[in-house]
Amino acid sequence: MKVALSRKEHFNAAHRLHNPAWSDEKNKEVFGKCNNPHYHGHNYAFIVTLIGDPDPDTGYVFDLKLLSDLINENVIKHFDHKNLNLDTVYFKTLNPTAENIAMVIWRILRQHIDNKYELKIKLYETERNSVEYPAH
Amino acid sequence: MKVALSRKEHFNAAHRLHNPAWSDEKNKEVFGKCNNPHYHGHNYAFIVTLIGDPDPDTGYVFDLKLLSDLINENVIKHFDHKNLNLDTVYFKTLNPTAENIAMVIWRILRQHIDNKYELKIKLYETERNSVEYPAH
Amino acid sequence: MKVALSRKEHFNAAHRLHNPAWSDEKNKEVFGKCNNPHYHGHNYAFIVTLIGDPDPDTGYVFDLKLLSDLINENVIKHFDHKNLNLDTVYFKTLNPTAENIAMVIWRILRQHIDNKYELKIKLYETERNSVEYPAH
Amino acid sequence: MKVALSRKEHFNAAHRLHNPAWSDEKNKEVFGKCNNPHYHGHNYAFIVTLIGDPDPDTGYVFDLKLLSDLINENVIKHFDHKNLNLDTVYFKTLNPTAENIAMVIWRILRQHIDNKYELKIKLYETERNSVEYPAH
Amino acid sequence: MKVALSRKEHFNAAHRLHNPAWSDEKNKEVFGKCNNPHYHGHNYAFIVTLIGDPDPDTGYVFDLKLLSDLINENVIKHFDHKNLNLDTVYFKTLNPTAENIAMVIWRILRQHIDNKYELKIKLYETERNSVEYPAH
Amino acid sequence: MKVALSRKEHFNAAHRLHNPAWSDEKNKEVFGKCNNPHYHGHNYAFIVTLIGDPDPDTGYVFDLKLLSDLINENVIKHFDHKNLNLDTVYFKTLNPTAENIAMVIWRILRQHIDNKYELKIKLYETERNSVEYPAH
Repeated sequence: MKVALSRKEHFNAAHRLHNPAWSDEKNKEVFGKCNNPHYHGHNYAFIVTLIGDPDPDTGYVFDLKLLSDLINENVIKHFDHKNLNLDTVYFKTLNPTAENIAMVIWRILRQHIDNKYELKIKLYETERNSVEYPAH
Repeated sequence: MKVALSRKEHFNAAHRLHNPAWSDEKNKEVFGKCNNPHYHGHNYAFIVTLIGDPDPDTGYVFDLKLLSDLINENVIKHFDHKNLNLDTVYFKTLNPTAENIAMVIWRILRQHIDNKYELKIKLYETERNSVEYPAH
Repeated sequence: MKVALSRKEHFNAAHRLHNPAWSDEKNKEVFGKCNNPHYHGHNYAFIVTLIGDPDPDTGYVFDLKLLSDLINENVIKHFDHKNLNLDTVYFKTLNPTAENIAMVIWRILRQHIDNKYELKIKLYETERNSVEYPAH
Repeated sequence: MKVALSRKEHFNAAHRLHNPAWSDEKNKEVFGKCNNPHYHGHNYAFIVTLIGDPDPDTGYVFDLKLLSDLINENVIKHFDHKNLNLDTVYFKTLNPTAENIAMVIWRILRQHIDNKYELKIKLYETERNSVEYPAH
Repeated sequence: MKVALSRKEHFNAAHRLHNPAWSDEKNKEVFGKCNNPHYHGHNYAFIVTLIGDPDPDTGYVFDLKLLSDLINENVIKHFDHKNLNLDTVYFKTLNPTAENIAMVIWRILRQHIDNKYELKIKLYETERNSVEYPAH
Repeated sequence: MKVALSRKEHFNAAHRLHNPAWSDEKNKEVFGKCNNPHYHGHNYAFIVTLIGDPDPDTGYVFDLKLLSDLINENVIKHFDHKNLNLDTVYFKTLNPTAENIAMVIWRILRQHIDNKYELKIKLYETERNSVEYPAH
């Protein structure tokens, strides 16, 4: 039986939900107030979970200081106090929904975490709305 | 790999735990202060989770506004500011434990959510006591 | 300059807002869904604050274990898992609004706390609705 | 002794801190990452407090349903899912710092709340950063 | 489909991360400020989850009062207001990392919970750092 | 009317409540489990509040980045992952109760914050136990 280790981090960003293949009317109908052309924003909180075996010498699944540094260098530095649509390479053509943001964070961190660890991302857009990837 | 999308909602209700097949003594012994014949109550919080694939056009697993409307129309309207034992059809003969309330909410919403989505309910009776259905 | 010492406690109770001097129509109009004759309920949280000088020998304004015992004996034992309207002497003729519950808790505890301490009660009926007595 | 009644509400918005009388360098130096020209955003939470006497007929300082409606109509409708700098009349020439947002909300609501009530606004920009107006 | 029932509990304790097989330098390098020889401490929160079928007579997966008593008697009594390294039998030779504390709590409770229930422990060392055992 | 600006910070520390002028029996009787000679610990959270006038050029009462740096340099660096009794100069002869910790933090920060600002400290030892200095 393995152990899951989790670290919660935050970033504050602006975003807009919009599909450029659609008319303004359809965008407004589907995305409602999230389609505001001047953007709105959120305090995003996200939990990064690594599943593995504790090291017998340290008792650690992974060093939390190192995990926090990895998250800050590869995610927060690029997303915090940014406009997700305009200031990041990830959402130039991808709609920055909570679902897509969680999947992007997963893909970024997957490159920096040894594959012996299972990786999961839970993202809160608000206290009431959240997503988890992968779901299982 | 699929994405889990979650929405947190609330209702405030009175309830009483009681098994009519038992004597008053046995009810008191098993359910303790939760058996108070005049009822007590809780601020129930519950999280509805849908597991599926994000739509390529929207980036949504499911529209959260629509999900919230479904929950309000089919659950909250019937449970909020109600006596669960006396005012709802669901707990006339079913004991309104946290376990049973979560299963009832699951059964109600399952009828309104396409079967391509896996559905889960997590219910908090208090900040310290919660249940999840199904468990896996 | 004095120090404020606070202790948070909880009780879960049913209640109904109703003014017996009014018609059913007026009660329904003024109190809305809180007037449900079968009651509804809440997880009430309340914070008891004592303002005084730390004792030079202990560094305590007041012993928190003793404060918690006083609150449990005089408030929680009477309110937890009860119907505030039917099961307590305090709300037989007083409407159990958040305002009145906070004032009743203040009056109860004032009798057990030396007058050298200023006493304040903050009560949360829900996470979003709260009252404080006295306000200053 | 009066009673304080509080209601917590939320809005999600984009903003940018910027003083147009200053050079870009000075703005960047003073406001740091909050000066991002493409905006960033927050889940703002704010608590509106009214201080007054409970009405003897209702036990209410103020009807919370009415207070919530007033806040939604006069604050949230204008601020939620908006760019505070571009989409509101309030921050065309006023920097949307937490301090100024709290004072603007106070000024808006002061016009709709009878002067017999003292009014206070507490605003959380993040879980760790908050302001209160007036301070006493 | 089974139901998961969870109970959240707390203890406050001192601890130090240290591997006696290593030099002081290596301990300092690996465990950083957590290696402080005079100890530091945390408010640990942990959630005990039992997965099973609700009893048809009670609607309970497990009696929460009984579960809380089991946790208090077998875990909290031994860990609360203790130095985990010096005052408990469990961490004499085992490093009290969050991972190991969660696994120890699981092993303790596993002896007191019928094997028909699946058992899981989630432990929060801080609001941002947590572990879960078993992970699946 | 002035504005209150608040910043929440954290430190994790071990401590022991003990009065060396008293016998072991009296210490045990007064401080109970907090008197454990091997120490216990907490995740302390504290909120630093400055009351002043917003600067007309910035809209800031005080720069929160500067405030956070001041708190980190003068409080957190000395208290985090420390034994308050053994590792700090402040509690060599002063009992590290929540009351005294809050007053010590106030005295430290008062030297670094211009007297034109009123200063207040709120400290949480646990989620349920907190102190505020000064009380008014």
